[in-house]
Amino acid sequence: MKVLVFGAGQLAQMMYLAAAPLGVEVYAVDVVAREVINPVDKSKFDMSIEYAVSDVHVITAEFEHVPEDLLDMAEKSGKLHPNMAAILTGADRVREKYVLDTNNIQNCPHLIVSDVSDLDAAVQALGEKIIFKASRDGYDGYGQWRLINSEELPKLKHAFASLDLKRVPLVAEKMLSFDREISIIGARDAKGNVCCFDIAENLHHEGQLHVSVAPATAVSAAVQKQAEQIFETLANALNYIGVLAVELFQSGDELLVNEIAPRVHNSGHWTQKGADTCQFEQHIRAVLGFPLGDTASKGVTAMINIIGCTSFSRDLISIPGCHLHWYGKEVREKRKMGHINVVADSYRELGEKLLLLLQYLPEEYFVLLRGEAQRLIAIEA
Amino acid sequence: MKVLVFGAGQLAQMMYLAAAPLGVEVYAVDVVAREVINPVDKSKFDMSIEYAVSDVHVITAEFEHVPEDLLDMAEKSGKLHPNMAAILTGADRVREKYVLDTNNIQNCPHLIVSDVSDLDAAVQALGEKIIFKASRDGYDGYGQWRLINSEELPKLKHAFASLDLKRVPLVAEKMLSFDREISIIGARDAKGNVCCFDIAENLHHEGQLHVSVAPATAVSAAVQKQAEQIFETLANALNYIGVLAVELFQSGDELLVNEIAPRVHNSGHWTQKGADTCQFEQHIRAVLGFPLGDTASKGVTAMINIIGCTSFSRDLISIPGCHLHWYGKEVREKRKMGHINVVADSYRELGEKLLLLLQYLPEEYFVLLRGEAQRLIAIEA
Repeated sequence: MKVLVFGAGQLAQMMYLAAAPLGVEVYAVDVVAREVINPVDKSKFDMSIEYAVSDVHVITAEFEHVPEDLLDMAEKSGKLHPNMAAILTGADRVREKYVLDTNNIQNCPHLIVSDVSDLDAAVQALGEKIIFKASRDGYDGYGQWRLINSEELPKLKHAFASLDLKRVPLVAEKMLSFDREISIIGARDAKGNVCCFDIAENLHHEGQLHVSVAPATAVSAAVQKQAEQIFETLANALNYIGVLAVELFQSGDELLVNEIAPRVHNSGHWTQKGADTCQFEQHIRAVLGFPLGDTASKGVTAMINIIGCTSFSRDLISIPGCHLHWYGKEVREKRKMGHINVVADSYRELGEKLLLLLQYLPEEYFVLLRGEAQRLIAIEA
Repeated sequence: MKVLVFGAGQLAQMMYLAAAPLGVEVYAVDVVAREVINPVDKSKFDMSIEYAVSDVHVITAEFEHVPEDLLDMAEKSGKLHPNMAAILTGADRVREKYVLDTNNIQNCPHLIVSDVSDLDAAVQALGEKIIFKASRDGYDGYGQWRLINSEELPKLKHAFASLDLKRVPLVAEKMLSFDREISIIGARDAKGNVCCFDIAENLHHEGQLHVSVAPATAVSAAVQKQAEQIFETLANALNYIGVLAVELFQSGDELLVNEIAPRVHNSGHWTQKGADTCQFEQHIRAVLGFPLGDTASKGVTAMINIIGCTSFSRDLISIPGCHLHWYGKEVREKRKMGHINVVADSYRELGEKLLLLLQYLPEEYFVLLRGEAQRLIAIEA
């Protein structure tokens, strides 16, 4: 069987590697060059996107910002999973907030800003600490603005005056404090079966995911249940087929949805070594109508992103349970180059392995790793 | 980095899939068509074998019967691992017996037959129950002849008279009874480090491997040590770099080497799901000079070959711990089409999963599976 993936980055690559043992061929679409390629060796296939769409059994996406004409073509073929509306919900914060609100799923207090004149009302409703987020990928990478105190409001108004807020509104979110960021990743199949992986605990630095630990430490039964309910409500509301990721803020036993990603997700890479079925195989199973796989965790796993860095020792793979996944991309600042999965039998052992791992890594690129290692070591078995 | 594999079957395919996460590209040589291809999608690269040999970092083989001119070219490049002599030792039973005998490694009593007139001496030395094996892949697939009683000797002499025994001698082996067949698979790197996987227990039917269980049941410390010593002696004697498989007959605590395979091996496929590092990644690590990976087993695993059969339900992957590996080949009688790995926490649970698995399989193609399931279920935890 054949699957076409919109997007030809590392997520399509890992889908390819996970699909091959099932006898499933993965073709990827470079949506910029508009070419069909092999996502592993990047060789070009001599076929048009139109032909590929007609030839494959299923079409899916590795990212949500797929040009709408392509999504449209795929949707019309009847082969697109998840469906176009679900993908666009992940690509548009206004749609996302609408889905969350209409399904009574707790998320950050927010208002939609589609005119500079909305700003005063936003401050009145949300307070003076606000994050403004572009609702779509529409401002050439400029996506977020922070208001820390209301004195800076005029400056912000001035900045926003040059944006086409009617076309790409902003979502104004109240800045909240929370204990930690977690994510729940799972799959829903065409019959409505839902199957989640254990919750991952995610550490970010300068807006990028650096480390995930799964299963997350100290997850109460209430939080686990709540997260799974949020996942299921969302997946059902979106009539979702495939792997879906939900990022959450946790404060005590309270969960707020931060954002959703209609795809396999960086915070699920740990499943490659830490779960019976990995998220990539699970996605392929779900979209092709195969039975979902078991998601049980095997030990405890840390996933460490390698960001903008090639100057590490590959000998890190000498550490038992330590596996490298290299994407083969040219290095650029802030670019995700690969990741490392480290599996252990206990959090303590995992922490010790992370300290060992640091001997092979330039710590300036892995600024959160030592602290996380020490935190894990201190956890009672 | 790039690795060229002589042979483009499922072993090269699985090397490709295991190498990609390390940032290693695998190119395969179809030694019949003399083409360089991608072993997963079988697409042809526009390069000659000579160019590939000069371009890659390392050359290896997925089978021992590589045409000698290719091995020669690779050996001369200085990039061939394992070395040519080691590969040829696996391809020639006379060389193999020589290596075993000169290194005092126990194997079946045997004589070399290079003339029909040697047959009487063979019967005298080995008794009337003998297996004659072609020493090399030289008789168009005809490789084995059995003598059950000496009355059939004239018939055999007549058959052998038409063979060019000078060019391709036979190895006459005494037919022995033994308790079971096991194999030990491991790797040796350029520094001489040796690292073995747990012993696998192998069930054959009509000359083909049907089921492997690893770690093998009831392995005494003496047997484990003996198997590892045999492995290390052989790997050192061959100055071996890469993954090597040694098939053994076990009787009580006594081990005899049946044959060696200078490559990744079917009885090591269980490591894909049952060991920290799989044999394919381990081979890539060894030949490229990367650190060897941890070989610790994770639970207990059964590997079931799918032979000459496509009429099974793919829904078998709904069983927790059950994973399919499909090679994507056209079906032929006796052809290995794929395999299934089933991982469990105990032999009993593994046996129960195998019974469950049988619900998805046509039993006439998996004739040993029910018995093996029942045997495993009866094992005390």
